[in-house]
Amino acid sequence: MIDPNMATMLCFLTTDAAITRRTLAALLHEAVELSFNRILVDGDMSTNDTVLCLANGRTGNNPLCSYHPDLQRFKSALMYCCTEMAKAIVLDGERVTKCVEVAVKGAVNSIQARQAARAIATSLLVKSSWFGNDPNWGRLMAALGYSGCKLKEELVDIYYDGLLAVKSGVASTTPLERLKKIVSKKSFRITINLHMGESEHTIYTTDLTDEYVNYNKSE
Amino acid sequence: MIDPNMATMLCFLTTDAAITRRTLAALLHEAVELSFNRILVDGDMSTNDTVLCLANGRTGNNPLCSYHPDLQRFKSALMYCCTEMAKAIVLDGERVTKCVEVAVKGAVNSIQARQAARAIATSLLVKSSWFGNDPNWGRLMAALGYSGCKLKEELVDIYYDGLLAVKSGVASTTPLERLKKIVSKKSFRITINLHMGESEHTIYTTDLTDEYVNYNKSE
Repeated sequence: MIDPNMATMLCFLTTDAAITRRTLAALLHEAVELSFNRILVDGDMSTNDTVLCLANGRTGNNPLCSYHPDLQRFKSALMYCCTEMAKAIVLDGERVTKCVEVAVKGAVNSIQARQAARAIATSLLVKSSWFGNDPNWGRLMAALGYSGCKLKEELVDIYYDGLLAVKSGVASTTPLERLKKIVSKKSFRITINLHMGESEHTIYTTDLTDEYVNYNKSE
Repeated sequence: MIDPNMATMLCFLTTDAAITRRTLAALLHEAVELSFNRILVDGDMSTNDTVLCLANGRTGNNPLCSYHPDLQRFKSALMYCCTEMAKAIVLDGERVTKCVEVAVKGAVNSIQARQAARAIATSLLVKSSWFGNDPNWGRLMAALGYSGCKLKEELVDIYYDGLLAVKSGVASTTPLERLKKIVSKKSFRITINLHMGESEHTIYTTDLTDEYVNYNKSE
């Protein structure tokens, strides 16, 4: 039962840094939005989720606030921690075998980018093909097509871990074996550029396995 | 790859009745909306769907039109054919074992009724439990909860083939064994009454099986 907002989890972050309550709340909110709120295993949203961040100020630094010179470093570290933990939750999904990062770029707006990424991350056909180590970009294109997101097939580029699979809507010259090798990994990234605008959305998701079904077929 | 509008299919209906083009088009549109457009196996929408209805007028009747006394009978027959074929398509889904009718009633409006029915019909946890013959109404309640549909938990009634499982949000006294027997059937009906309004929506869907995943893990 894992879907954004936020999946079934209790997350506790602690830091020795001194930081104002307002600044920490803002940073945490942003980091959670881009990590824990972007994970999806089975699309079943849970009701039990908490992220807490506690700062005890033990380092004795000047409290971090919006104009503090070190704020960006702290923010990056917090973002890194949240993203790594979010991915760990995904990989810990019931009987799944992979963590797949789905990044949709070049959408007309952020709502459409989210729609497109979610269509892929929730497609049973796409998720099953990942389980089978099959770089089946046709299923990605189909999911994009029914997502409701504005696109032109002839503009779509798709990359697996940075390797070009689809250029302008048609298969690239990348050998299938190289793509297969990527999809066989425990963790990989699919980047889709719609070339329609400037918005993007990333989701961390998983494959769908026969064992997921058997594990969940009764309580 | 089966989801409303309309699933991957070509459907041909023929009749010997005489009927005006306009009337047949209107009846067919309505029948398709309530049958072929309400089926969902895996939520992956296809691009290849057609329903054709051909009438040759061989019976020599006065052509059926909107005020013809026999129109209602023809309409019922057409509706029956479309619904039965829609269910047959569902049961013919890749490696699925059951056809489940999910009827949400008493919603505030038809959009919300659809939302609630779709949340249940696309929930991997719900679909897996059907595969396991598990009358897991807790998962139905969870899906209703995250569907975005307006509801009050304490008003929800749930029936399995007309047998009360949940009354006002809590388990009924119906023995679990009787509900299990229903969920073990090849075809059954779940009716949910939200008691919030007058709108309803029905979807014909399936369980999710380990074999569906294995069948689709590569092309």
